[in-house]
Amino acid sequence: MKTLRLALIGFGNVGQGFAQILIEHGSRLAVQYGVQFKIVAVADLQKGSVADAAGLDPQLLLQAAAGGDFKSLPEALQRDWAALDMIAHVQAEVLLELAFTDLQTGEPAYSHVKAALQKGMHVVTTNKGPVALHYAELSALAQAHGVQFAGEGTVMSGTPTVRLGQDVLRAAGIRQLEGILNGTTNYILTQMESGLSYAAALAQAQALGYAEADPAGDVEGHDAAGKVVILANLLLGVPLRMADVSCQGITGITSEMVADAQLAGERWKLVGRLQVQPDGSVQASVQPQRLPLSHPLANISGATNALAYTTDLVGTVTVSGPGAGRLPTGFAILSDLLAIARIA
Amino acid sequence: MKTLRLALIGFGNVGQGFAQILIEHGSRLAVQYGVQFKIVAVADLQKGSVADAAGLDPQLLLQAAAGGDFKSLPEALQRDWAALDMIAHVQAEVLLELAFTDLQTGEPAYSHVKAALQKGMHVVTTNKGPVALHYAELSALAQAHGVQFAGEGTVMSGTPTVRLGQDVLRAAGIRQLEGILNGTTNYILTQMESGLSYAAALAQAQALGYAEADPAGDVEGHDAAGKVVILANLLLGVPLRMADVSCQGITGITSEMVADAQLAGERWKLVGRLQVQPDGSVQASVQPQRLPLSHPLANISGATNALAYTTDLVGTVTVSGPGAGRLPTGFAILSDLLAIARIA
Repeated sequence: MKTLRLALIGFGNVGQGFAQILIEHGSRLAVQYGVQFKIVAVADLQKGSVADAAGLDPQLLLQAAAGGDFKSLPEALQRDWAALDMIAHVQAEVLLELAFTDLQTGEPAYSHVKAALQKGMHVVTTNKGPVALHYAELSALAQAHGVQFAGEGTVMSGTPTVRLGQDVLRAAGIRQLEGILNGTTNYILTQMESGLSYAAALAQAQALGYAEADPAGDVEGHDAAGKVVILANLLLGVPLRMADVSCQGITGITSEMVADAQLAGERWKLVGRLQVQPDGSVQASVQPQRLPLSHPLANISGATNALAYTTDLVGTVTVSGPGAGRLPTGFAILSDLLAIARIA
Repeated sequence: MKTLRLALIGFGNVGQGFAQILIEHGSRLAVQYGVQFKIVAVADLQKGSVADAAGLDPQLLLQAAAGGDFKSLPEALQRDWAALDMIAHVQAEVLLELAFTDLQTGEPAYSHVKAALQKGMHVVTTNKGPVALHYAELSALAQAHGVQFAGEGTVMSGTPTVRLGQDVLRAAGIRQLEGILNGTTNYILTQMESGLSYAAALAQAQALGYAEADPAGDVEGHDAAGKVVILANLLLGVPLRMADVSCQGITGITSEMVADAQLAGERWKLVGRLQVQPDGSVQASVQPQRLPLSHPLANISGATNALAYTTDLVGTVTVSGPGAGRLPTGFAILSDLLAIARIA
């Protein structure tokens, strides 16, 4: 039985989802894959930091987190570590960087990832910041230290778009990627087709927890643009920057435009697109677009996400699935970890 | 640079598609994956057999095949090998078994695969017979000899359903698989929605080369049932047999039934289904079914295929893409070979 020791930065929704997976599926995974995962340290900005070289009980971590912080855990587990302290002190094969996303600077995740890679730890992240803004540097650093830098959960949560592209479809010669990469905007557009105004649909998305109180990151297209940059880096090997993405959100879409499209047998979708040009460069955009119902993305409704890969050898392959969620994002981490276990 | 030497049984559409991929993409793949593929022998029932330890030129193979057989190739390359002779004599890491499918006996492919595995060769096949009928035995044999037995191309050609399921989604706990696994019947049902009768739609599918002169294998559901059995073996680890699949084709679907479904906002689809039962056993069926338009398979039209995986951890993930074709099926072989190269 192989053991991978894990150090976590951040124990919010995603970290808790992953802990729940270890509790409910750990024994099955040990049998199926011959590997067990042991959480040996957690550092969370709000909840504090705890560590145990023998392994922290995920169930106890979840109970403590439900109470608000780790203070209820035994004294012997308590640490006074900021995230970078934890990376410096912990003995673990993998860092899970699950802190909040900042698409302006990538910090503090960027510094965390860098420190862990320099220490020779594999890094798995669900944080778009470091992958969208610093992928070329960080993947070179990973390679120099003989470790993996993996981010399946940065795009479409656990729907395995990154792995499918990297492990399989890249060999088919990817010409274009087109995706519905943001569930909030897709939910809003879907609700507008049932007759809701933009404002009412947005309010509903906020009530359901899909959209933030300040919805700009979603509705202006920035979140989708971050994912477009990540896909360019991970699947096309082209180091795009956020500024390279021509980006337009859905705030200008009116009920009339939605109704017009419906009459024409079409649908408005916020489409993230990467097109490989004849010279090998890549054109990147996020923009609302009227798609005919025959388009593989036209029938993706609600909070579902989808990515269509157009390739030289196998034509168009489309993958759809959840774009967010506690367990799906936890599963994204698991699938990166299983890939690391295969080579570790 | 790693080299994998390949011996091919069968050089019809699929073998020729694979040869074309080597010609057009060989150098790119060598750079991207550090591996080159060398065809060192081919045995085809109609075209004859040729071999060259230094590698046969795929371009010359294609030219000869276009002329009907390998007789036009240099005398020095000619062999007098049946498929089993080739396996016995050739020095190659991988056998590509691309001969015709027989879903009654699995022969002659079953004997070919067995002989190659016993000799310690990896085997890649696009032939449903040996995988649907003899998977448990052949995969145990492969394991005993430390080699791979891979069949991405047996289901949905190069659309990477098998690899996605085996490498990634299996870890999510697969509860159900539902697929449109036969392009011919899906094409016929799609055409019937445009007002064609079953007979007219079938005739059109035959004219386009989608359906055989004797269409029973497709329209009675046997082809889809073979794929259901393969998915049970490969993705669920459950050794089903053809007789375990409750199978009904589309021959009873009338224009009236199609129109009725349309009025109700639904569509008839031939659905292959595997459901894991609470006791771990699997219920398997192929049957025409009215799906609401919100179902992930309802909008898969024409000759496109799709597979929806319902899992514990990531909900439903759906993959759609081509179900047949020279290049897509050639790519299925390539993706199995790249996976073998990774571990070889």
